[in-house]
Order: sequence, then structure tokens, then C-alpha cells
Amino acid sequence: MATSASTASLRVGLAQINPRVGDLNFNLAKVEEFVAKAEQAGCDVVAFPELTLSGYPPEDLVLKPGFVADIRVALEKVAARSGRCAVVVGFVDNVDDGTVEPSSARPPRLFNAAALCANGVVAGVYHKQLLPNYAVFDEARYFAAGHDDVTLYDVGGVVLSLSVCEDLWVAEGPVARQRAAGSQLCLNINGSPFDRGKSGVREATVVERARETAMPIVYVNQVCGQDELVFDGGSVVVDSTGNVVARAAHFEEELLIADVRVPTRAPSVRAIPVSSAGSQRAAVPSRVAVIDDPRDRVLGALALGTRDYVTKNGFTDVVLGLSGGIDSALVAAVAVEALGAAHVHGVSMPSRYSSTGSRTDAADLARNLGIDLLTIPIEPAFASYLAMTTDAFSGLATDLTEENLQSRVRGTTLMALSNKFGWMVLTTGNKSELAVGYFTLYGDSVGGFAVIKDIFKTDVYALSHRVNERAGRELIPRSTLDKAPSAELRPDQRDDQSLPPYDVLDAVLALYVEQDRTAAEIIAFGFEESLVRRIVGLVDNSEYKRRQLPPGVRVTSKAFGKDRRLPITNAYRG
Amino acid sequence: MATSASTASLRVGLAQINPRVGDLNFNLAKVEEFVAKAEQAGCDVVAFPELTLSGYPPEDLVLKPGFVADIRVALEKVAARSGRCAVVVGFVDNVDDGTVEPSSARPPRLFNAAALCANGVVAGVYHKQLLPNYAVFDEARYFAAGHDDVTLYDVGGVVLSLSVCEDLWVAEGPVARQRAAGSQLCLNINGSPFDRGKSGVREATVVERARETAMPIVYVNQVCGQDELVFDGGSVVVDSTGNVVARAAHFEEELLIADVRVPTRAPSVRAIPVSSAGSQRAAVPSRVAVIDDPRDRVLGALALGTRDYVTKNGFTDVVLGLSGGIDSALVAAVAVEALGAAHVHGVSMPSRYSSTGSRTDAADLARNLGIDLLTIPIEPAFASYLAMTTDAFSGLATDLTEENLQSRVRGTTLMALSNKFGWMVLTTGNKSELAVGYFTLYGDSVGGFAVIKDIFKTDVYALSHRVNERAGRELIPRSTLDKAPSAELRPDQRDDQSLPPYDVLDAVLALYVEQDRTAAEIIAFGFEESLVRRIVGLVDNSEYKRRQLPPGVRVTSKAFGKDRRLPITNAYRG
Repeated sequence: MATSASTASLRVGLAQINPRVGDLNFNLAKVEEFVAKAEQAGCDVVAFPELTLSGYPPEDLVLKPGFVADIRVALEKVAARSGRCAVVVGFVDNVDDGTVEPSSARPPRLFNAAALCANGVVAGVYHKQLLPNYAVFDEARYFAAGHDDVTLYDVGGVVLSLSVCEDLWVAEGPVARQRAAGSQLCLNINGSPFDRGKSGVREATVVERARETAMPIVYVNQVCGQDELVFDGGSVVVDSTGNVVARAAHFEEELLIADVRVPTRAPSVRAIPVSSAGSQRAAVPSRVAVIDDPRDRVLGALALGTRDYVTKNGFTDVVLGLSGGIDSALVAAVAVEALGAAHVHGVSMPSRYSSTGSRTDAADLARNLGIDLLTIPIEPAFASYLAMTTDAFSGLATDLTEENLQSRVRGTTLMALSNKFGWMVLTTGNKSELAVGYFTLYGDSVGGFAVIKDIFKTDVYALSHRVNERAGRELIPRSTLDKAPSAELRPDQRDDQSLPPYDVLDAVLALYVEQDRTAAEIIAFGFEESLVRRIVGLVDNSEYKRRQLPPGVRVTSKAFGKDRRLPITNAYRG
Repeated sequence: MATSASTASLRVGLAQINPRVGDLNFNLAKVEEFVAKAEQAGCDVVAFPELTLSGYPPEDLVLKPGFVADIRVALEKVAARSGRCAVVVGFVDNVDDGTVEPSSARPPRLFNAAALCANGVVAGVYHKQLLPNYAVFDEARYFAAGHDDVTLYDVGGVVLSLSVCEDLWVAEGPVARQRAAGSQLCLNINGSPFDRGKSGVREATVVERARETAMPIVYVNQVCGQDELVFDGGSVVVDSTGNVVARAAHFEEELLIADVRVPTRAPSVRAIPVSSAGSQRAAVPSRVAVIDDPRDRVLGALALGTRDYVTKNGFTDVVLGLSGGIDSALVAAVAVEALGAAHVHGVSMPSRYSSTGSRTDAADLARNLGIDLLTIPIEPAFASYLAMTTDAFSGLATDLTEENLQSRVRGTTLMALSNKFGWMVLTTGNKSELAVGYFTLYGDSVGGFAVIKDIFKTDVYALSHRVNERAGRELIPRSTLDKAPSAELRPDQRDDQSLPPYDVLDAVLALYVEQDRTAAEIIAFGFEESLVRRIVGLVDNSEYKRRQLPPGVRVTSKAFGKDRRLPITNAYRG
């Protein structure tokens, strides 16, 4: 609506929702709920995240033509429901704009699209131009690139342009070209996954683009867990000088409302008329949400990722083995945060090698967290396996086989509880262990979700301390934090008998796994050659084990999952 | 070499090799070995498969700049070794040709390249133009598209052009444009994975392109197993009228040699001079290898895929549970074909519910195949688990939990043998079971390789009959072929108590899993609604289980693996 001779103001709603992949009815109802709220708040436009209707990322679901057709039906319903308040939703478009060039024998023919709906119709459609196809992203598998920069929309007297996620990440790209064509406001919808370094980079990118184009940017992100990915929200409005004027919560749904002021439109700019200006109203103050401690971002991601994976897959309760060690303690604390103590079940499974301290620590943790604790000693099954294999193993020394047997008895016991009670098993391995294969396949790795799969051991400690700090008491027992890590699969075992100190190990792993350095390069950085060769060999040789792990929350820029697609059969030792 | 006034003849070697992904020294030695053979045979040019030096597909290895640098070193060695016989090898090029446009914030900067080496130098480099990024292919993740059609080479007096795999699959594409620029011979190098429908399609495509361009095509494929993929060889030479004049073996290494006749070059065509014409020599007859029975192609793929996975990962021996059923029988037969009977170890693990017939069938199979058979009854461990969970399960009925326990005792027992003796466990689940989740995670699904993961149950029968047919006797016992399938996890259990008849199930699965049909579409084809809904629900709900399976040989156009990337958290029920 016009507010003075030289500026106009648009009230925008940023619908930071938690959609469900594939659940078109749920997503449609969610859109309708937030549109109603935005209308009540007097918004001129309300924008939803990338691929709103399908949920993001829909992956190979979009290869089903029937699914794409169902999305179209949902879009028509959004349009039919729309009124003066324009609605921007993401969807999968199958209407070819004629610009697709053959990139292969089977080039994609779909578009990652944003629709602008108002007054009962789809007023316009934008096709995403830049398609991320790196890291966890496979968008070139599904989508062709759009090419249109000149379609602008007049919404409430303001000329705006649409863009989708990656379009914003390149200087002199689609957003700058839209600005050159006359856009006064960039409306960018996103499915931008969390990693611990990304919130800062993401917002800096929005600010940089606003400054480059001297145009305000409305940046809407979703907030949910979807398999290994967490989307942390943090939707923002940045003004044309690069100031963050509004920011939504992280890890929670929110309708963020902001009044965005832009210069009055130049009469020469051609824009599709979408909606009229609203009536005069008082300006709304916008909030700017903040998370101070970076560990809280990671803990927030772990809790949201766990909650959404468990509940969206139809589970209410989880079960995990409590060894008395720090990994299971942190996972239990996250699970309680995610699901509530009544829905978390701990199991202590002592063996002939378990220390008294471990049993006490497990019991203390369960009491501190208020979760139930079942105790099932594993000796009977372990002894049976030893008896069953006596003949076959006759004359052979005890080795890793017997250690793995204990771990597998525990895994089988947890799965029996899962089967009988319908609880999802949470796996407790950390990234350091999973990297070097320091776990037993079908043993401690069993489960539906691997909560701290992408957290190095050194970070497990940092996060555990933060858990206690936030609680204001020792939820995780001090002795768990202080003792030397051990798998307790043979007498007096300690992790440091098999592995380098975790600070060294994690530093080498960060270079090798997350930064794609070769062994030779890491040695050149000053790490000891035999140590590096040993670690790299362990990582390479356990690729087959990691392929059989459950999914877990991605919190770094390269997790073990879609991020890191190395061959199992791989002889490279550079 | 010139043979008459109007035609010239070029002797080409098609080096259908079995490379190793990441093993640059091995691949380099293999290239040198085949170059020497080609030179001895008087070849003017010898061509190797796509990405020869890294092995194909190298996946995320190419994201390591150190790996790409090492490939360059290997290429320089090939060039240094080359003489008058030109050598075409595939490699990863990191020299930008200046044509890369930003497709995202992190566009790929590498090229899937072919180098033409002769007389000690790299005479030219070609960049693949069409990049498959569908099905199992992720080439847009790694590579930018090349754009050059006009660089031609004069090799032995013949003007030829280079192309890589997908470049050949599009009409009016790179090959046609090279022809228009003056090429007389298309030299196309490939890493084209097997699926049971593909050999025919692939060769028809080569023939079609030869006819379209009226140009002979030399098509070189590799022959190997690499994780889930099998490359079946079948390299061909097609003349300018579309006749197949030479075809290499399937599933075996071979240097195929052919004399290719082309019109004498037009003096106006500009081509980089690479090598001189050779001396006069007698023409060589070329062989045209054939596989008649389509089941032999699938059996060949299973054997090669299994052999290469096992041996390239450093194993010599495999172990598998022999239930007396047809799945384990077929897997055992394939393993014997792949590795030899002395390297295959069968284990019979009877329970309180195992029939006498099952034990006899397992023993008969082992005897027929000449493999050893260990018998380890699972009752002791099973009874221990029941005792351990008596308190926790008090008052609750027996259910799937106890069935799964038996399967997990077997899985744990196999893993103990694997750990103690260094044998890789082969998993025996078929595609029908894995599709509907009719298996126990950490039970019958444990193992390093799932040989028949991509074979529907109906095809398991067809292949088993063929195994006996080829052997000329009943390797797989008749009673195994004839009896009703059963998991034998409770008294009188049969698969058809839990599942529809396999012919119906497999027909629905082919539509749902392999052809991306929705439930609604399948029902519209005439299948019973409740049956389709039930099957589709089973498939969707067991996605999380399939993610934890070992790799297995892909033999269809859509296997459970990189081919089918559906979200686990997925509410779509269309």
C-alpha cells in the first residue's frame, strides 16, 4: 500500500512451516492454515518454502508422473482459496517452457517452481534457474533450469520478483538480472538444510545480495527434519542496505510478519497486475530471533531431526542401550528433549566385562533424565554362541570375533524390545567411530536412527557439557564425562588402545573426510605419516560398514550419507 | 594405411579391459599390457574404456583434487609410452576450456575426457558433451559438459573423431556434428553398465547412429563389476551401413581387433596429424561373439559382479547360510561359478521349526556343488534370548519378535564365522522379498554382498532351472525347485500365508518399483485394489530396511540402490 509520495510498503508473511514429504493433504492444510493467519494479520503476500506442496526434498518421488499430477491438483486448490493476499508456494511444474536443451539421452523435463496465486487463480509461475547438484543435492537429476528473468509482478502496488533458493547464491545472477528488469523486492523461497557453519554463511549471502542489488530480500526457509537433513528455519527479511530487519525462530514453525518499504514503482516497469493495495494500517514491529551459543544450534538440530524422523515415521517411543558411556548419554538427553522422558526407554546390558562404574553411571543417567531403565545381562546368549561355535573354532585363539559377538547380542536384544513394544532403536555411534569403523555391524550399529552420526567424539564432549550447563545440573553424570572411553568388550579395554587420541583423530578425519584431502596432503600438513596412513586405511576399509548404517542428523558440511558418495570397491590410497 | 585409390583401412584395437576403481598403477599397467598387444597385432589405434585411468565410475573420488592430479600423472605416462599406434584413454581433465557456465553456486569444473596419445605426446583431448544424470548416473555432480565438435584427428591416414558414451545416444548430437565436420570414423569409449534389457538397446543405438551418420563406429566398453554395477563388455565395430562386423566377448577381457575401411579423406578436411599410415599387411578376420540365452547374460552378470566385488575387496572366500530353499541354492551356484567350489562355504543352521527336507536339500546342494557344509543348530542361542526376555515380555503373546530372533541368531552365527575365518558373508534375499520387507534386518539380511538382490522370485526359479540345464544335471535339487517357499520360522509356515502368489506380486512390483507407477495407476490396469494397496504399503514401509542392505548386482533398469532414491520419511500413498 502507498504510504507517501516516494515510498510504498508491503506487508509480507514468511510462512516458516514444517511440511511432510509426500503428504499433499497435510501440506495443503498447513498452507491454508498459514494463509488464514496471514490474511488476519493484514498481509499483502505470504510466502512458503521451496517445493511447499511436495515437501523438500521429494527425491525420486517426482519421477512418478502420478505424483507430479497430484501436486498440480493441490496447487489448483491453493489458487482457488487465494484472495487479495497473494500466496507464493513451491511446487513441481511439468509444463515445459520450451527452453530445455538435451543434456543427456534422458534430460529432465520438470521444473522446481514457485507459483504466485491471488484472487482465485495462479497469476504466474517461476522456474528455478540455478540447480544445486553437489553435496546432498541432486536437483539436476530431476529438474531443468528455468531462464526467465523479466517476469515481474505488481502485488499491492509493489513490483516484485520470485526466485528459488540457489538463485540467490550467485552474484550477477538471476536476482541481479531481475533487479535490472525493474524488480523492487526479491521474494526468495528456500529449502536450505542446516549445517553448523551454514546459518552465518546463508544470512551473509542474503545480505550480500541485498547490497549488490540495493533491493530488499524476503528469504523464507522451512523448518523440519527429513531423513538425514534438518532445515533450521531462521527466515529473514533484509532491507535494501543489507540490514536484517526481521528474523524468525530456529527449529520452530512461525509466521514472521514484516512491513517492507520500497520506492514507489516506476510507471515504465511492466509487471503482471496481481493484487490491489490494501487499506491503511498501523505498521507492525518485527522480531529478530537470535541463538547465541553455537552448541545450541547443533543440539537444536539433533532434537528436531530426531523428533521429526521418529514421529513422521509413525513412532512415539524410542529405546537405546545405556552403556554408562558418553555417547549413549548424549543420545538419551537429545531423545528426551525431542520426545519427552516418558517416550524414551533405556536398557542396560551388562556383560562379564562391564565395570560396576558403567552400571552405576547408566542408572544415574536414567534417574537424572527421568527415563525408565531395563536391565538385561547378555551372558546367557553370549555363552550359548561360544558353545555353538566351539567345534568350528576349535584350536583358534579368541579375537575380535568374541568382542563382536557381545555387541551383536546387545543389538539383537534391543531389536527384540523394538519388535515387541514398537519402539524405534536409537543408535549411539559418533562420527569418529563410524569414520574408522570402530563399531560392530549388526551390533552397536543396529537401529532406526543414528542421532550423533555426524558428531565427532570431541564434539560429543562439548555438547554434553552444554547439556548440563543448560539444565543447570549434572544430567549427564560427571563420571561419564570424566572417564576414559571404553567399549568394555574385553578386560580393561580402552578406546586409546585401538585408536589415536580423539583430538588428533578428529583433526585428521576432518581433513580426510570433510575436506577431501589426500593422505599425502595431510602428512604434508605435519601429521605423522604412519598415523595418517593408518587412519586413512581404517576409513577406506570401513566404507562397506557405513553403507549399512541407519540415517542420522547431518550437522556438518559433509556427513556420511548423500554427501559423500565414495565407491566401496576403491583402491585409491593417495 | 591406404589400400586403394578410393578407400583406406585402419586397424583398430578395442581394449575391453577390467580396470580397478582408484588403482591408478594397476590400470596403467593394464593399459601398457594391452597397448603392447595391439602394437604386436599391427594396430593403428587402440582404444580403452571411459575413464580408463581412474576406473569407472570413480564417484566422489574425483572431488579430491589430489586424485585428479594423480590421474594426470598416469596420463603423461601413457603418452610417454605411446608410439605410432595411437592410444585413446579416458581420464578426468581439470583444464577448463572456458565454456563452463554457472549452473549453481558450485558448478563442476572437471571434464569426463578422452585423450589421444601417440609418438610420446598427448595429441588431443576431447570432453564428453552429454552427461547422464539419471538412474545410477551422477555425472552432472562431477563434470561440466564439453562443446567441441570440430576437432578431428588424422590417424594412419584416416580422419577420426572421439566421443564418450552418452554422446552416442542422441540423434543429431555430437556424433552427427562431428560427421558434418568431416569425420570418417567415430571412436566412442564407454562405461556402459549392464541391465538385462540393455545389450540389445545399446547395440541398436550404435547401429542407428552408424546409419544416421553413414560412418563406421568403434564402440569400446569395459568389463568388470564395480559395487552394484556390472559392465558386460560386448564391444563392437559397426560399419557405415549399420552391420556389426566385430563383437567382443561378454563378461571377459579381450583385445578385439578389426580392420575398418573408410573412404579416402577429402583433402579439404582439417585434422590434427597424429600418426602416419602403417605398412601393407594382410587383413585380419574379426570375430562376432554371441550369447544366445538371455538367462546366461543374467547369470554371467551375477558371477562377474560377485567375483569382482569379493576379490577386489581383498577376499578369497565366501560363506552363506544354506536353508534348503531356492534363493540360497542359486546364490551358492553363482558363488561357485564366480570363485570356485573350494572358496565357498555353506552353513546349515537348523532350528526347532526346520523340516527334515530342508536339511536334506541343503546337504544335497552342498554335495552337488562340491562345497563344504558346516552344521550349527541355533537352538541354544534362541533359547537363551527367550530366557533373557522372559521378564520383559511377561504376559505378552509370541509374535514376529520370536521369528526375527531366530533369523538374527543365524545372522550373528554367520558373522562369527566371517570374523574368525575372514570369509565374506553372501546374503541370499531376492528382489521380491526385499521389496516388501519380507526379511529380518540384521538377520537373513546380514552380509557383504547380496548376490540376487535385483532378481525377482519368479526369475530366481527361471535362473535355477537354467543352472541345472547348463550343468546337464540337478545341481540344485529337484525338491528345492518344487517345494513351496517357506522361511520356516514357525510351524508349517509358508510364504504364501504372508504374501500374494509370486507371479502376481512380481507383476505389481515391476510396475510400482521399476516403472514408477502409482497405486491408482496399477489398480486401473486391473489388479485388485486391496492387493495393490497392501503391496505398495509394504514396499513404502520397508524403505528403511532396504537402506541397511549390502550392495548387490544390478540386473534390471531400476535396482534398489543408486537407481531408486526415495525418501524414507515419505507419506505419499498415491
